[in-house]
Amino acid sequence: MPSYRAPVEDTVFLLEDVLAIHRYDNLPGFADASADVIQAVLGEGGKLTEDVFAPLNLSGDREGCTRREDGSVATPKGFKAAYDAYAAGGWMGLSVPEAFGGQGLPHVINTAVQEFGCGANLALSMYPGLTQGAIAALLVHGSPEQKQTYLPKMVEGAWTGTMNLTEPHCGTDLGLLKTRAVPNGDGSYSLTGTKIFISAGDHDLAENIVHLVIARIEGAPAGTKGISLFVVPKILVNADGSLGARNAVSCGALEHKMGIHGNATCVMNYDGATGWLVGEANRGLNAMFVMMNEARLAVGVQGLGQSEAAYQNAVAYARERLQGRALTGAQAPDKAADPIIVHPDVRRTLMQIRAFNEAARALVLWTALQSDIAHRSQDAAERQAADDLLGLMTPVVKGVLTDRGFANTVEAQQMFGGHGYIEEWGMSQFVRDARIAMIYEGANGIQAMDLIGRKLPKDGGRAMMAFLTEVQTFVKDHGEDAGMTPFVAPLQPALNDLQAAVMWLMQNAFSKPDNAGAGATDLMHLLGQVVLGYMWGKIAKAALAAKADGRDAERMDAKLVLGRFFMERMLPETGLRLARIKAGAETTMALPAEAF
Amino acid sequence: MPSYRAPVEDTVFLLEDVLAIHRYDNLPGFADASADVIQAVLGEGGKLTEDVFAPLNLSGDREGCTRREDGSVATPKGFKAAYDAYAAGGWMGLSVPEAFGGQGLPHVINTAVQEFGCGANLALSMYPGLTQGAIAALLVHGSPEQKQTYLPKMVEGAWTGTMNLTEPHCGTDLGLLKTRAVPNGDGSYSLTGTKIFISAGDHDLAENIVHLVIARIEGAPAGTKGISLFVVPKILVNADGSLGARNAVSCGALEHKMGIHGNATCVMNYDGATGWLVGEANRGLNAMFVMMNEARLAVGVQGLGQSEAAYQNAVAYARERLQGRALTGAQAPDKAADPIIVHPDVRRTLMQIRAFNEAARALVLWTALQSDIAHRSQDAAERQAADDLLGLMTPVVKGVLTDRGFANTVEAQQMFGGHGYIEEWGMSQFVRDARIAMIYEGANGIQAMDLIGRKLPKDGGRAMMAFLTEVQTFVKDHGEDAGMTPFVAPLQPALNDLQAAVMWLMQNAFSKPDNAGAGATDLMHLLGQVVLGYMWGKIAKAALAAKADGRDAERMDAKLVLGRFFMERMLPETGLRLARIKAGAETTMALPAEAF
Repeated sequence: MPSYRAPVEDTVFLLEDVLAIHRYDNLPGFADASADVIQAVLGEGGKLTEDVFAPLNLSGDREGCTRREDGSVATPKGFKAAYDAYAAGGWMGLSVPEAFGGQGLPHVINTAVQEFGCGANLALSMYPGLTQGAIAALLVHGSPEQKQTYLPKMVEGAWTGTMNLTEPHCGTDLGLLKTRAVPNGDGSYSLTGTKIFISAGDHDLAENIVHLVIARIEGAPAGTKGISLFVVPKILVNADGSLGARNAVSCGALEHKMGIHGNATCVMNYDGATGWLVGEANRGLNAMFVMMNEARLAVGVQGLGQSEAAYQNAVAYARERLQGRALTGAQAPDKAADPIIVHPDVRRTLMQIRAFNEAARALVLWTALQSDIAHRSQDAAERQAADDLLGLMTPVVKGVLTDRGFANTVEAQQMFGGHGYIEEWGMSQFVRDARIAMIYEGANGIQAMDLIGRKLPKDGGRAMMAFLTEVQTFVKDHGEDAGMTPFVAPLQPALNDLQAAVMWLMQNAFSKPDNAGAGATDLMHLLGQVVLGYMWGKIAKAALAAKADGRDAERMDAKLVLGRFFMERMLPETGLRLARIKAGAETTMALPAEAF
Repeated sequence: MPSYRAPVEDTVFLLEDVLAIHRYDNLPGFADASADVIQAVLGEGGKLTEDVFAPLNLSGDREGCTRREDGSVATPKGFKAAYDAYAAGGWMGLSVPEAFGGQGLPHVINTAVQEFGCGANLALSMYPGLTQGAIAALLVHGSPEQKQTYLPKMVEGAWTGTMNLTEPHCGTDLGLLKTRAVPNGDGSYSLTGTKIFISAGDHDLAENIVHLVIARIEGAPAGTKGISLFVVPKILVNADGSLGARNAVSCGALEHKMGIHGNATCVMNYDGATGWLVGEANRGLNAMFVMMNEARLAVGVQGLGQSEAAYQNAVAYARERLQGRALTGAQAPDKAADPIIVHPDVRRTLMQIRAFNEAARALVLWTALQSDIAHRSQDAAERQAADDLLGLMTPVVKGVLTDRGFANTVEAQQMFGGHGYIEEWGMSQFVRDARIAMIYEGANGIQAMDLIGRKLPKDGGRAMMAFLTEVQTFVKDHGEDAGMTPFVAPLQPALNDLQAAVMWLMQNAFSKPDNAGAGATDLMHLLGQVVLGYMWGKIAKAALAAKADGRDAERMDAKLVLGRFFMERMLPETGLRLARIKAGAETTMALPAEAF
């Protein structure tokens, strides 16, 4: 059975040494996150996910969820107790304001713990994950009364949340949605329609489920300008906060999916269900985007979590499986064969996954930190700069980390040979579970379009310019430092590739938007490689400093080797991405649709 | 439900125009393969796979195989009738000598039909696929009596075949095998041991199953030099050819796999089963390699077949699914949205898969043709040249076509958004089924080692040198032809990258074999890109010639666009592969095993 160990030590190193989180102690909540608190929180989060979440991963996949005759849904054995442990530990509200029962810690700490959950048991961790997204949306757009009604219960984990966007005929193009809302005259609305692919849509983990639903109010404009957001509780809430009558919303069916079997992916039927408007009428997409942006980062974290879990199991197997001899002569002459970790192609695979994972974790935490700064700083310029970076990196975290995270689960599975294809070993599940992260919360092609069509041109390209300057400054600042040369010298050509791509798009995409569309995915991965390379630069700097302090020499040396591996073997991908972007849209768009 | 259409027209174009198969009419069996016969055979093969195999793909996946109490195995509903139709059509013996009941047609024709089967229903097509492999091994290494006993029945499809290599503790490293064979004194042996991952190990499609099993004869040397090959029928065959007593071999369990659920992957228990030596004692690995090499090409074909099937379904969906508007303005203003095939990122995906598929099909057929020439030519020099190319390309066909074929099924699934993750749509199955092809018949890392460690240095690098010269000559011969410029100009730098990689390995890998191991996978893909680019050069040449003849202008224009797309966007990968190879093994091997 696969196992999981939360990367607590590495995460602490990233927060303390690489990101120097205590520089931000002037932000609300940060001073509470002392080094001791961080260590304690991550340690406890690690334990919960290792001891409670991970042992249910394989069994949850096999058992899956069950919809009963009455439409209620049962989660796999053990999920309820595990969820209760999570709720009782106060994890749901880790970074929610204290006013609503949370602990008010930085979002970046919560993000670190999210990774552990996603690595240990993705299907299970989605229940609280969606709830945290719904909490975020209500915090920003809910009325004071809505906040009071829903947030404390959600923060304590008694109620969970969902996000209802997709309909059978519309996923990406939400302007096509048909679910309609009719005013009841008492301030509430009556919602009717069908939503599909609703994760955690129904289950037996919580007393109530708070659905956030987009719908069109009767008479609203067509398209995205007529979309409103509603809160629709599964069980109506009485004025005193107690639970009342069942609302007219139910799970019509469970989807039969490739993976995340432990999560109930529901068809949700709204049959005149009572809901209340969240935020302004016809501005629902704006409100939903708060949740979406949070969710997109969280989905990127899923890609990382699955990549890390798959890596750990591949390492364990590569150390134990005896097969063949090292090319340089037997390494375990007392045994029938050497462990396969002696083979360079096995090493290459493991190095490649880990060199990604460590930089991806740095990127996730760095981006989450921008979210904290953007929301908590008193300084408008600092807020703006952080918000720019957050916006620019959100599609990269979602798109690149899930594309590569999935590919890494496949590579890790490959280490097992035929055993990797057998479900009992658990490697197939990592692949099947990680696959969804490339799709939901905006398929990765949509992330790429978000980057190239919105984030890149926004405010005259301000965010991208700031990022390019930041990396260029880093390269210049460390160019004379011999220890840093292996990490900054390769960054320069990669940065040049990114700059050339941006320049080419400026010259060729405004007049011919198809040139942007055809290069979107490659730009996302090009930016991804550069920012991961930049993260390795930051990690190397911190590792060298730690070594100079006499701390953890072996672990730091390993990081320096991994960073060099990234620079030598992974970062050169930028040249290929640039070549593809500069190829433009001509051949891509040349064929008539019938010719395919 | 997914559908499948056999690419008959494209295959005929490749055989007739690109490979000019009738140049080889002097080889045995080739003259029988007239243009009319090829058209008829591929047309009928296409129909069988489209109408009989494909409709059972999704249902076979869902139902899977069942092992009964008595150890017998039932295949999914409909498989028996489909298999019977295949056998009755004489497909099993398409390229088997007429002396054993076959049709003696070229292997390249059989290979073309294999692709159709693998695209339509991989799990089902594996039953005859393994039988054809076993036939090939018996043809080369079986005694006259063994051939007479087994081949006619296998060729008519009444009996099927299997290949028993893997044991729980040994896959790649067959020298560790423990299954033992004890002479019975009457020329037969008694085999005892456990084999795992045996595809088609037991089932209800045929009257008898002919197991080819490797085992160690008592007292034989340790390691690979003590391995012998045996034929072990499920039911013993009487002297008159009728079926006799049940042999002591049985399916102990079915594996619970990620995919190919319709194929019975068995744990096979040999409990003193009676078998007969095939070929010489202790030379079993040699005999097995005949089967393995055939099987490796066939597995590469599986990667292509799945990629093609997934592509076709993605195209159908992209034409029908309405979502968003073209960046250049509405294309279907009468509809609520445009079909997603208008979006450049969707096009990019489809072009990428198809630009691979067409070149991969050319490579498969070109390689199979080398196999025909190597086995059937009267000219020793021609045989040797063909055998060199066959040996060099076998790991590329197996490794690259399954790596990319799998990746393409993932890309095709991605086109479907959330629907791609739902099993009813069938896209998940393509991904799950295609995944095995990267693993079995030698995991792709082993293919890469076969290329770099055996095929590359063999005979002083003769095969690689001949290939480099052939491509260089092609580039030179067509460098002045304006119509060919878009196809040969980009080939030159790619060829330079391959040459540089070979040179670097010559200088750096003999002294440090880890440099070869660390670059093996990248060399395999580098060679793969170059040969696929070369195939596009050949296709472009034939397409230009066909156009000049006034044939099929639209279809030929599409090929020329696809070829340019490949050159612009896919071939530049060679630079990245070269950079990785030249990085060498240092960082890859630097960490101690405990540091992972």
